[in-house]
Amino acid sequence: MSERKEFRDLADPERAREVVASLDLSPGTERVPLEDARGRVLAERIDAALDVPGFDRAAMDGYAVRASDTYGADSEPVTLPVVGSVHAGETPGVALDDGQAVEISTGAVVPEGADAVVIVERTEEIAPDEGEDDSDANRHVRIETAVTPGENVMLAGADIAAGERALGPGTGLTPREIGLLSALGVDEVPVRATPRVAIVSTGDELVRPGGDLDHRAGQIHDVNSYAVATAVEEAGGDPVVYPHVGDDMDAMEETLLDAAADCDLVLTSGSTSASAVDVVYRVVEDRGELLLHGVAIKPGKPMLVGRIGGGSGASDESGETRGDGAAYVGLPGYPVSALTIFRTFVAPAIRSSAGLPESRTARIDGEMAVTERTEEGRRRLLAVGLIEDEAGETLVYPVDKGSGATTTLTAADGVVDVPADRNRLSAGESVTVDLFSPEVRPPTLLGVGEDDPALSRALDRLERPRYLARGSRGGLRELRDRLPDVAVVAGPYDADAEGVADATDLGGWSREWGLVVPAGNPAGVTGLADLVDRDLSFVNRGTESGLRTNLSNALADLADDRGVERRTVTESVSGFDRAARAFESPARSVAAGDADAGLGLRATAAKLGLGFVPVGSQSVRVLANPDRLEKPSVRELDGLLEDVSPLVDGLDGFESR
Amino acid sequence: MSERKEFRDLADPERAREVVASLDLSPGTERVPLEDARGRVLAERIDAALDVPGFDRAAMDGYAVRASDTYGADSEPVTLPVVGSVHAGETPGVALDDGQAVEISTGAVVPEGADAVVIVERTEEIAPDEGEDDSDANRHVRIETAVTPGENVMLAGADIAAGERALGPGTGLTPREIGLLSALGVDEVPVRATPRVAIVSTGDELVRPGGDLDHRAGQIHDVNSYAVATAVEEAGGDPVVYPHVGDDMDAMEETLLDAAADCDLVLTSGSTSASAVDVVYRVVEDRGELLLHGVAIKPGKPMLVGRIGGGSGASDESGETRGDGAAYVGLPGYPVSALTIFRTFVAPAIRSSAGLPESRTARIDGEMAVTERTEEGRRRLLAVGLIEDEAGETLVYPVDKGSGATTTLTAADGVVDVPADRNRLSAGESVTVDLFSPEVRPPTLLGVGEDDPALSRALDRLERPRYLARGSRGGLRELRDRLPDVAVVAGPYDADAEGVADATDLGGWSREWGLVVPAGNPAGVTGLADLVDRDLSFVNRGTESGLRTNLSNALADLADDRGVERRTVTESVSGFDRAARAFESPARSVAAGDADAGLGLRATAAKLGLGFVPVGSQSVRVLANPDRLEKPSVRELDGLLEDVSPLVDGLDGFESR
Repeated sequence: MSERKEFRDLADPERAREVVASLDLSPGTERVPLEDARGRVLAERIDAALDVPGFDRAAMDGYAVRASDTYGADSEPVTLPVVGSVHAGETPGVALDDGQAVEISTGAVVPEGADAVVIVERTEEIAPDEGEDDSDANRHVRIETAVTPGENVMLAGADIAAGERALGPGTGLTPREIGLLSALGVDEVPVRATPRVAIVSTGDELVRPGGDLDHRAGQIHDVNSYAVATAVEEAGGDPVVYPHVGDDMDAMEETLLDAAADCDLVLTSGSTSASAVDVVYRVVEDRGELLLHGVAIKPGKPMLVGRIGGGSGASDESGETRGDGAAYVGLPGYPVSALTIFRTFVAPAIRSSAGLPESRTARIDGEMAVTERTEEGRRRLLAVGLIEDEAGETLVYPVDKGSGATTTLTAADGVVDVPADRNRLSAGESVTVDLFSPEVRPPTLLGVGEDDPALSRALDRLERPRYLARGSRGGLRELRDRLPDVAVVAGPYDADAEGVADATDLGGWSREWGLVVPAGNPAGVTGLADLVDRDLSFVNRGTESGLRTNLSNALADLADDRGVERRTVTESVSGFDRAARAFESPARSVAAGDADAGLGLRATAAKLGLGFVPVGSQSVRVLANPDRLEKPSVRELDGLLEDVSPLVDGLDGFESR
Repeated sequence: MSERKEFRDLADPERAREVVASLDLSPGTERVPLEDARGRVLAERIDAALDVPGFDRAAMDGYAVRASDTYGADSEPVTLPVVGSVHAGETPGVALDDGQAVEISTGAVVPEGADAVVIVERTEEIAPDEGEDDSDANRHVRIETAVTPGENVMLAGADIAAGERALGPGTGLTPREIGLLSALGVDEVPVRATPRVAIVSTGDELVRPGGDLDHRAGQIHDVNSYAVATAVEEAGGDPVVYPHVGDDMDAMEETLLDAAADCDLVLTSGSTSASAVDVVYRVVEDRGELLLHGVAIKPGKPMLVGRIGGGSGASDESGETRGDGAAYVGLPGYPVSALTIFRTFVAPAIRSSAGLPESRTARIDGEMAVTERTEEGRRRLLAVGLIEDEAGETLVYPVDKGSGATTTLTAADGVVDVPADRNRLSAGESVTVDLFSPEVRPPTLLGVGEDDPALSRALDRLERPRYLARGSRGGLRELRDRLPDVAVVAGPYDADAEGVADATDLGGWSREWGLVVPAGNPAGVTGLADLVDRDLSFVNRGTESGLRTNLSNALADLADDRGVERRTVTESVSGFDRAARAFESPARSVAAGDADAGLGLRATAAKLGLGFVPVGSQSVRVLANPDRLEKPSVRELDGLLEDVSPLVDGLDGFESR
């Protein structure tokens, strides 16, 4: 694999952009029915092929006349015989002579001989004389105003005339353009074709959503395929998700060549495993051309750019010039990295080939909420979240710690491009955020802290909240830094020691906690003493959890009662250090038969149909950032907490406070 | 029709908004496959149903170890036997004992007994001793760093744990949310259903695009159906365009009831004819309920709001309570009015029922470029166009003169809401524009003036220009008011007299004009004198056209030569006052057999395969607004005009200047 050495130097990001742009995805032109043309881009100029309107058209309801017959009618009304009437969609049955009028509807053909319309409001039909019937022969109208030739008439072609330029190439089709094309009778329009983009996920460990996972074999769901497909759609491309292939070289080659034959661009994505990346790399080298390997931007290091397929595949080794094949870009495996690289390098190429401009909403300015240190010497696309302060200004904070976590996807709103020569972004500094999607909006509320079922219900009632379940300790820490709007803390805490003495307690509730055990409590667990004294396997929560604090305090009380060291007690609990992530996790371990008891809530035991041994009750408090009390979402949450009974109602072991 | 009297007072616009909002389009919930979920809105909260990852997962390539075996390795490297290896997607074949290591790939299952991963960069595999083979039995690795328990391992559920709140109800699904749902294995999501919106066009005169028009019967194409359908889609609704119905009461009733049975909202639209409106009105009254008739806003006067269908139609007369049926809104007939009322009153209700927020780009602030007087006492939604000045600031100018012209659709970008107590908007005043679509962008260039085929080619090369063909006189007038970026003037003009002496002439070309006659010139026309002396029917251009000025001047010269009054000459031309709208129109009249000769260009005659009798050549000049010389689009146009030969090349009778 000596070829790899050419790429030892990472490409400059600008160079990478140029290489991707040079791939030329231009998919050509297609004709689509007018009703499917929304959002498409005209491939050619459209000139009017007919006059609109195609005839002299009454612009108002009234009477068609010869203008010369109405001169002087402003001062002295003129009475004319009404020789007929014409409605929209009718061929006029009469022509007009001097001194005659024809009743006419808006949109109707102005009859021959007439050159103007007097609006009905300035006329009066005169009742037939006594003894006359009211047939047309006896109708008369009094005209009370003079009109000029052409008045209240839209002449043929006055709207747009045959041969006139109607819409230029490159015009994006919105309802307005669709309306004009309708008027011109166009029912099929030439538009830029949509680039077809193949998405091939790689890696033996990936399983499509909907499929079952074998955890022991390290299987995980394929996150990138649908996420990238959705991003392709958003950029104006037509995504084609190919069946998943593992790390098998032959299968990969077949899939990539199929994709290259059928699509304008092939994206690979999905695996973080070196072997899968290696297989893709080799296929691109053997059956295409690798133009770029790695970009000097974090997280662009693993990016590949090239072409796949084209020409006669079998004769590649002979050194013949290959055909163009399809463009190829290999995205990083971590989902946030994949979307970041897609958004930065690939989406602009797709948009441009589809003829679509960059969305006006794809960017937002804001101010760093905290200071972030970055590694100097490498340009970085820093994933960030957004939050609005009380005045509605946008604050920006870093969220991705490079963990590859999928939850970072929904915690991050976009990326900040940090130049290589910067080693920090300071709190208060202005930054520009490239949003992951034009549709991204900052959450209305940012909460951090303990997870809790009643809290979930409260969040359900707010519009677009974001909640980061980082435990009570995590919530207190972020609140001290004044980042979130609210922190949610369960169990005891020392406001002064935590540095949150100025936070406003918006309210809360209490929840009953204890030991979640298998249904029917087969081991006959009666309380914490059993964990210490008997050989029971236990699952705790992490140190960030308020529930763990309550448990530790209760065990300390037990140690004090027994007159022993606290450590002696905790060390006797088999699994005291076996910390599970979320509030339901220990209970789920019990449900799965992996533990005899887990730290948890009565509500969780009830939900999962498990047994419950109560130990204590714990207060959950919602603390507001003093800088954000006037934010509408904080006020709304405050309102919800005024009476929490709808939130805790039906949750076993919860009560209003 | 005495019921109509109830509605004699027009409803307040706020009241109209409330009534439309009260129609309750809520279409309920549906489940869609994940790959089709982009842009949809979650109907319910999604909690994680599984741990992500489902196992303790290596976050880096390296060696799985017990952290306690590495203590002190920073100062003194530790060598451990490598007892196996595990890759992503594999079930580990080994468990770890004290003092052992297992080679591990990113994403692989951390084997039992291991609690940390040492990254490969901080290790070195030791070659087997001489005489040993390189099987696993003889592998060793030197560990050069100490790790803590959990280091480089993502614990089961550390990303998101079963039971945790993942996404709240009302969340809009972008690629990021699709990614998180993929990670959770969700392949079908509960989303708000899309409201189905029926579009029924009415009026005997309407013909769908693609159908042939009978101009004599006053037929025109149906503009509103597809334009409104597109706007419905843009607002997040699912449009259903019903076959066109005329003014027949029974057919209308049948169509409206069908639509009401199948859709959440029925819109009628299309006809301006009183009889069609009347028919719809009666059907809604008979088979539904009319809640509101007319809104005190221009152009909302003809708006209808109510419900159609529901309950047992046959027993309506008995006074029984009807079922709910579908919501109903009747839109005005003029296209710009229809879209204005749709955007203002209907789109918010559709968005809200689909759970979609108002787009952030649906509004833009700008400054009035000119003063507009409005009728006091009636609130008005003023259709406006947008243009950017040299500094990129948005200028706003009124475009709709209430003519019902379809070209106004693409000349207008949005509407300004002018309160009833205002009678003018002054130049320089700040206004907010509600755009017709979130996708609307101001044109890069605004040109006004003569229409011309070479100019059309130049415009084709610019991105998003807007050109209003208002003739040379119209262009000069607007340029004097400094509204457009450029004016295009054909033929002679007096810059001082027109008030454009400070405009910059960017360049131009010349075009040959004369009389367009039928192919082969059957009447043997030789020049203008024939128009005067023979009985030939002629079609002229309008007074705004530069071509007409040239013709008038040439006829004046002829009169001078003959020593007669100019008027004598022009009055002898049969059709001198028969003015056609666009530069091809007189030629098209000739082609249609409606005239013996028309004023036009050699290029037009060539394009339409007609004969041509040359009279003169005329200069076309592109004049730039002195305030806009530095606009990028003006500079680009200036560049194109440096060498106009590609623009006029191939156009018969044009030459570079």
